[in-house]
Order: sequence, then structure tokens, then C-alpha cells
Amino acid sequence: MKNVAVIGVGQTKFGELWDKSLRDISVEAGLLAIKDSGVEKESIKALYVGNMSAGRFAGQEHLGALIADNLGLKNVPATRCEAACASGSVAFRDAMFAVASGSIDVALVVGTEKMTDINGAGGLTTLAAAGDQEWEASIGLTFAGLYALMARRHMYDFGTTQEQLASVAVLNHKNGVKNNLAQFQMTISIEDVLNSSIIADPLRLFDCSPITDGAAAVVITSEDVAKKINNQPVYVLGSGKGTDTLALHDRKSFTEILATKLAVKKAYEQSNLSTKDINVAEVHDCFTINEIIALEDLGFVEKGKGGKFIENGKADINGEIPTNTTGGLKSCGHPVGATGIRQIVDIVKMIRGDSFNKINADYGLNLNIGGSGATAVVNIFGKEPKW
Amino acid sequence: MKNVAVIGVGQTKFGELWDKSLRDISVEAGLLAIKDSGVEKESIKALYVGNMSAGRFAGQEHLGALIADNLGLKNVPATRCEAACASGSVAFRDAMFAVASGSIDVALVVGTEKMTDINGAGGLTTLAAAGDQEWEASIGLTFAGLYALMARRHMYDFGTTQEQLASVAVLNHKNGVKNNLAQFQMTISIEDVLNSSIIADPLRLFDCSPITDGAAAVVITSEDVAKKINNQPVYVLGSGKGTDTLALHDRKSFTEILATKLAVKKAYEQSNLSTKDINVAEVHDCFTINEIIALEDLGFVEKGKGGKFIENGKADINGEIPTNTTGGLKSCGHPVGATGIRQIVDIVKMIRGDSFNKINADYGLNLNIGGSGATAVVNIFGKEPKW
Repeated sequence: MKNVAVIGVGQTKFGELWDKSLRDISVEAGLLAIKDSGVEKESIKALYVGNMSAGRFAGQEHLGALIADNLGLKNVPATRCEAACASGSVAFRDAMFAVASGSIDVALVVGTEKMTDINGAGGLTTLAAAGDQEWEASIGLTFAGLYALMARRHMYDFGTTQEQLASVAVLNHKNGVKNNLAQFQMTISIEDVLNSSIIADPLRLFDCSPITDGAAAVVITSEDVAKKINNQPVYVLGSGKGTDTLALHDRKSFTEILATKLAVKKAYEQSNLSTKDINVAEVHDCFTINEIIALEDLGFVEKGKGGKFIENGKADINGEIPTNTTGGLKSCGHPVGATGIRQIVDIVKMIRGDSFNKINADYGLNLNIGGSGATAVVNIFGKEPKW
Repeated sequence: MKNVAVIGVGQTKFGELWDKSLRDISVEAGLLAIKDSGVEKESIKALYVGNMSAGRFAGQEHLGALIADNLGLKNVPATRCEAACASGSVAFRDAMFAVASGSIDVALVVGTEKMTDINGAGGLTTLAAAGDQEWEASIGLTFAGLYALMARRHMYDFGTTQEQLASVAVLNHKNGVKNNLAQFQMTISIEDVLNSSIIADPLRLFDCSPITDGAAAVVITSEDVAKKINNQPVYVLGSGKGTDTLALHDRKSFTEILATKLAVKKAYEQSNLSTKDINVAEVHDCFTINEIIALEDLGFVEKGKGGKFIENGKADINGEIPTNTTGGLKSCGHPVGATGIRQIVDIVKMIRGDSFNKINADYGLNLNIGGSGATAVVNIFGKEPKW
């Protein structure tokens, strides 16, 4: 495989963007990434779009052609990739393979989702389509319900507390305050979380990431091209993707996400790096329990001790592994198809040193999860090519 | 790029499969392809799924994980790719890049769509999501309507007749009679077409491909692996994908599909072949006019003369370019995400010599189109690797 570099990043404001359409936000993010990369639009030879469910949210499939057309990327090959909330990372990987194969020199990847143009029940049933329709969604099991089952089991097996769950939300809101692109720039307290409405016991309102509109984009190239046109390329050093059963009830364990363990194993092997080399992590906190499970499955802390780890400040910006330092899904918002790319945008900025967060990061990782863990993607990034 | 070979193919019966679910048909096609390839299930290292709109048709997104899970492909990376009715071919190309990059040795590609579990209006609005929602679908422009505009302009510019349109349907139904997997195994006459109900003038019922359930699958590998485990590999010699504006009204011409011309140019360049080398073609006859336009855009006949070409038998099984020799979308049926893979299955079988159609084919081509031509994919296949 050829080395692949990220040479440009862009992101829209995340939030309830009622004055902008799906195509507006997708184009905005794409243009920002192209501008940031320094390449001419004409150099882009393929477009990959990560999107979960514009068909249901907006009555629009065929997003590759839509966005290529509206971006003015005349006639480039365009594909939309989907794996529920991991759609962004899955699109990123497919673009990476196209570049690594030597077939495409420069590709644009746009992650996008417009979620607020549909009423509440429509949004919930759409998100439930990320789970098993016949065995979960059809009997009313929402995503909050699925993660509540995982949280309850984690509490039962390991003594994880409601306060520890809340500490994830508190941390990520604290990190998001300075992020001008985040949906919520406000701190919250443990009490705020504990006093918020129950959504699916034990998860409360502030344990849940919000419904969000937003888009993020990256320009990727082969190493040769990157070196010619950009003085700050950030390389993909390792990338892994795993799947597990779609339905939660088919899994051996509710307290780990096997797909994450498989994905990170591959990414570590490929990069020849390990947990201790990683300076910063963006992980998938769609619900607070998921950040706890993520840090355990990624190897940053022993299984069962993730809650205490976060409660004790070890995932803080000055902790052992600075995690979700731009606010995570909780504070940034979670436009499902955009999230994986937003994570990559933030990691790349930190490695380049131009994030609002001044973190000295040689190596960063993102973990993007689809559904209740049926898909997981881990990418590791760094300043020097490794393949 | 490494050479990529198709070493196994499989397809379900196409039709109104009310006794089978989306997962049933997807698994059935996948298992048939795996069995045909001779590889063990454990050798498959990635799954790509082509599907347009299971989210709307079946309330189910996240099809990669769903099908990996139900096929027993434990934990393999899985992605669903979408480009409307070209979703199958787009998934095939992404799988091809993963193999060509050297990252994956053996991949399974499943194209699938379950369209009949939704009522008529739901089906129509779902299919309309392949066009431009804001400029076409929202004002009631269906796909029959879009292709009717193209047909009317082709008639106006080139004198193409209603009988010539009908001759496409007659030919494809004749070809499909022996295809046990086709939805309709019956001949029809020119009069049958001309006397059928108007759907969108000038297109009548028998000018339109049907609403269909079905799945098709292929196993692909690198050349090295193919040579070890299979004595009949069929190689991808060239592959191109083009896009055009999503909305029909933004195009310069209604009588050509620019995306097809770009895709086939790339595929011919890559394969070092030209029109005259191709022995058999599977083209996208979602409406009869589209087969006429396809044969023109692919270079088999001069622009404007496609209707006469088909009427005169030159696309017949013994004609200049045997086209849709297993029945096309018209007779096989058109489960949108499956069609591109079904075309590849049929081309591969003809090149291997084990199709029910005994055609002596060294080189075959498939053209799979998304929407009203905003996406087009052309793949060229042959017995010997070329890259």
C-alpha cells in the first residue's frame, strides 16, 4: 500500500442549522477542506461521502453525485459509504484504499448529516435503523435503550457509578467550551447530569449526545503528491475496521465492543505503535457509557476501570490520555455521518498544532462506532509516513 | 494497482419474493458466490454491500454489519456503498480498490434490494430519492418522468420511434425466457408494448423495468490468490466511473449520458481495448430509451442511431454486439442495489462459458447507471490479467 496523507481539513458549525440544507453544509465543509489543502478543485479525482440516512432524514439518496455536482467537482467518480454512525470513517477508509491502490491521487471525503429537518419520532426511528430492524427496532428498542443495557451491565459487573457516567459528560462539555464549531459551548456539573430527565435508565438527558446538523471534510493524497503541495501533511499510520453482530443480544459481552478491539489491534499492528505512543484520542461518546467502554477497549485502561479513570481526571486534557479534547460527540454534537470525519479533522489539527487546543501530539487516534458496536473503525495519524 | 479477479458468482431468483426478507436474499446470494468460488468462508477478509435504500424500503441501514453477521463472516470489515441504481457497481469498485491496494486478499461483494415490502407510493418516492430531491422529486418528477423527457427529446432530435423503444423491451424479454432467475420469463410483442398503459408519455408500462426483490454476489481476489484457488478466474481489465449533475435540467444534453462516456473512456484506456473488442454487453435498460442511449454512449453505434440499431437486430444475441443477453433489467427485474452485481455475474458466467447463453466471449462489459445518469460505472472483464 502507498502511504496516504491528510492535507486539508474543514468543518461547518455543528448545531440546529435550520437555515441551511443538506447540500449547503456538505458543500461548505468540502470547500473549507479544499481551501485548507491548497490544491485546486480540478486536482480532486474522487469524492467519498459518509452519510447514514439522508434517504430518511431528507428524502435524498445518491449523495455522491449530489455533492460532487454542488461542489463543482465536475464529473468526478463519487460514492456514498454507510455504516450507521461510523459512516464518516468508513468513507475515509474507502477513499484511503483508492489512493493507496495508486488509482486516485487526490480524493475529497465529506461526512455529512442533516438531522433536524424531520420530527422527533422520525429521527428516532431513523436512528434505530442502525440497529437490527427485525430484532431490536421493531420492538421499540431505541439507541438510548441499547446503550442503557450496556451501561446497566457495566455498573453491575464493575461497580461503575452514575456519577462516573456523568463525569464523562462534564469533561466533554468542559472541553467543548472553547470550540466555536461545537453545538453546545457550556459547562455542566455532575448535579446537572444527575438531575436531568431519565431517557433510558440509567442514562439521563445529559448522558446522551444530541441530534445535530453538520458536515466535515478532509482532502487526502498519496505521499508523493502530499510532499509536493503541502508543508503539513498528516499521515495515516494505521487503520482498522471490525464488525460484530448487529443485534446486541447476540454478543457474548455487553461491556465490551469486540469490533473496537479488532479494529485497534489492526491499527496498532499496521502502525507498529501501541497505546502508550498515542498522545490524543477522539472516541465515540454517543452515550457517556460508550466513552468508558471505548477507553477500556482501546487499551488505555483495564476493563471495568474506565469510569474511575475518567472520574479521576486521567482522560482530561492534562491527563494520561487526553480524550475528546474538542468536546466529543456530547458537546460538539453528533451529525451521525459527519462525526468520524470531524474526529479526524480535530486529530489532524492537533498534530499540525493549529487546533484551538494546544496539545503536543505526535500521534493521535480516532475511534468511530456504528450502531451499538456492530461496526468500529480506528485510525492512527502521525507526522511521518510509516507504510 | 494489483490485478483483481472475480472467482465466484451467485444470484437469487429475482421477483416478488414475499416469503424472504432482505437478510435472507442477501445471505443466499453471498453463500452461492462463496460456494462457487471454492474459498472457505474464513478466507474472506472484507464485505462490500451495494444497496440503494434499505433505510426507506425496510427500515434498515447498516447493511454491511447486518449481512456480515447473518452470513457468518465473523467480524470482517463491512461497508455499504450507495449511488442509487449504480450501488452494486460502486460497491464492486470499492472492493476492487481494497484488493488492488494490497490490503485485502479476498473480498465478497453483495448487491441487494428488497423493494416489494413497501406500498406503491412509498416505492415511487423512495426511487425518486435517486434524483434531485429539491428540484425534481419534490415537484413530483418520477423516474419514469425523467426518462420520458429523455425519450421525447431523442425522438425529436433523431426521429427515434415508439416502435424502436418497444423493440428494446421485445428483445430483452426474448433473451430472458431461458433465464430461470429472471422475474419475467415471457416473450412480448411490439403490439403488447404499444398497447400497454401509458406511464409517462412516451413511455408505456412495458417500456419500464419492474419493481423487484433480489440479490447477487461476487467473490474477488488478487491475481496471486486467484491463481492458487480457482481455475476459472475472470479479471477486471478496466473500470471507470463518472458523475454528472444530479438534476436532469442542469445538463447540456438530454440525449446522452455524459457520465457513461467518461466511465467507458476510462475503462477502455485502462484495458487498452476498444468497442470492437467487446463480445458481449450488459447495459442499464431501466427504461427502454436508456438501452438506446447506452449503446450510443458506449460507442457501439453513432449517436441518434441506437433505436434503428436495435430494431434491426444488431443488439440481438447473434448481432453486432449481443446486449442484455440474459434479459436485462426489463426481464430479469431491477432490484436496484443488486443490478450492477447481477450484470457482473452474468458477464463472468458468459466469459467462463457456463451461462445458459452459449456466447463465445473473450471480453465483456457492464454499464450500470444511477439515477437519470448522475452516476455511471463501466467495468470490462476478460480471461487474462492486463494491469
